Amino acid sequence: MSILVVGSVAFDTVETPHGKVENVVAGAATYFALAASYFTQVRVVGVVGEDFGPEHEALFTKRGIDIRGIEHAPGKSFHWRGEYSGTMNEAKTLDTQLNVFAEFAPKIPAEYEDSEYLFLANIDPKLQLRVRQQMPNVRMVCGDTMNYWIVDHLDSLKPVLRELDVLLINDGEARLLAGVPNLVKSAEAVLAMGPKSLVIKHGEHGATAFFGDTSFAGDAPITLPFRAPTLPLAEVVDPTGAGDSFAGGFYGYIASQPELTPAVFRRALFYGGVMGSFACESFGTDRTANLTLQEIEERFEDFRAISHL
Amino acid sequence: MSILVVGSVAFDTVETPHGKVENVVAGAATYFALAASYFTQVRVVGVVGEDFGPEHEALFTKRGIDIRGIEHAPGKSFHWRGEYSGTMNEAKTLDTQLNVFAEFAPKIPAEYEDSEYLFLANIDPKLQLRVRQQMPNVRMVCGDTMNYWIVDHLDSLKPVLRELDVLLINDGEARLLAGVPNLVKSAEAVLAMGPKSLVIKHGEHGATAFFGDTSFAGDAPITLPFRAPTLPLAEVVDPTGAGDSFAGGFYGYIASQPELTPAVFRRALFYGGVMGSFACESFGTDRTANLTLQEIEERFEDFRAISHL
Repeated sequence: MSILVVGSVAFDTVETPHGKVENVVAGAATYFALAASYFTQVRVVGVVGEDFGPEHEALFTKRGIDIRGIEHAPGKSFHWRGEYSGTMNEAKTLDTQLNVFAEFAPKIPAEYEDSEYLFLANIDPKLQLRVRQQMPNVRMVCGDTMNYWIVDHLDSLKPVLRELDVLLINDGEARLLAGVPNLVKSAEAVLAMGPKSLVIKHGEHGATAFFGDTSFAGDAPITLPFRAPTLPLAEVVDPTGAGDSFAGGFYGYIASQPELTPAVFRRALFYGGVMGSFACESFGTDRTANLTLQEIEERFEDFRAISHL
Repeated sequence: MSILVVGSVAFDTVETPHGKVENVVAGAATYFALAASYFTQVRVVGVVGEDFGPEHEALFTKRGIDIRGIEHAPGKSFHWRGEYSGTMNEAKTLDTQLNVFAEFAPKIPAEYEDSEYLFLANIDPKLQLRVRQQMPNVRMVCGDTMNYWIVDHLDSLKPVLRELDVLLINDGEARLLAGVPNLVKSAEAVLAMGPKSLVIKHGEHGATAFFGDTSFAGDAPITLPFRAPTLPLAEVVDPTGAGDSFAGGFYGYIASQPELTPAVFRRALFYGGVMGSFACESFGTDRTANLTLQEIEERFEDFRAISHL
């Protein structure tokens, strides 16, 4: 089954207590696509500038990712610069240059139209909605968003939320969207806005899934939330992209399965954590782009071992 | 098997977004003892003042807790006043009156000397060590501490850490004790100070156990940490005592089992979470003091359901 992801493809310059990298290929769609590529066919819709050459494309094509939907525009690619310190739970943004991304108008290649799974990475909700409307026949839609859209573009975001089978956001975003501090109440409020389920990512403390509508989840109704662990890492080299990698592992696993049952949803959350943990182990995409299926399965078993009685 | 707990028995005045209570029986030893009482025989060593009467003692005796070790001293009992707001993850202390607790010199009744399990709740590490030395033949020693002792009394704390089979502290305390932000590195540094294992409590995000010495954990060596969930609660009425209740559920379950195996340790962490979650559901000890075994087992099964594939 194919996943179509629309989102940013960028260059990042990142500094952490473990060192610094400059102008490495990054962006939400990149991390998502690489993580999902171990599970299923992935197709990317994005935009890059003239600085994005064949050596950068190879990062995707080596993983079998379809990048015919990455548009090459005149100018420079999106560039983000940030740093992490202390507990490294949050990035400090030092500079954002949208460049060609400022005028991003997603175009879906005809070859992508039979994609069955759609992932709307964190971009302008107006664009998310437009892409959704161009893909009316997908089996499932998942999406991400962030504080900026929640605070300043809520009216654009609301119709997107109503389209989502799964919304993946972090604690702070959930509380901001709901306007209440309690996590369960936040989840209830967010689910009332439309998404059939909600995955709240807690960074180093794993993730919790809440279910508002179980119709998409097979026969067994899920009345309790579900909590997925993360593997405690002694070396968090660079957490950039961990959330997008989580989404990629989660959604990639779902797309690889014939049916979305509650058991598949739970395993998908574990695979999300697995891919998120790998993303933290190197700068940029180095680790995520060079995994073996055996490494992924072994870590999945570690996740089981650290969480099961 | 009997657990001897030494720690504070106090009156609390607490305000949260859900209301306010004044002068309710509380304190670390109280919460610990009540939670552990569902699993095993508990004996308390503490001190109270003249304001602590038969109606307060009944809270313990109704649960079959042995309070012959609670000394009655002239003066008033320890009193703490605090409030919670926002995400309610941390209390703001408004007032602390040590009263009789300032001169606390734990005395162990002769009837307690055959206790097999010792819990050193959060008190002056000098007193923790003295109690430990008076109980040389216990099978197991667990303990708690807090920022104040870590920062200002580290020299007194260090010999206590060397005596512990399990140290139970929260994220902030672990990082403070270790002096490093990464949780795994913190755990390694804390384990190097002596405790055979370390349980780091993450509040609403569960707890993680790290193992430095597996000799006490049965035949199967544990090389990975273990993560226990918490149940997301829509109504956190008052989180006071949740950490002590966690310790009580954890240690009470261990004391109820013939042998400490890795499987017992993992289940104990789940029971810790179970008792911590109940503690949050009411002001003071109301919920924790009035549970049924069936409620505890049902919640244990909820914990399994929300965390197992």
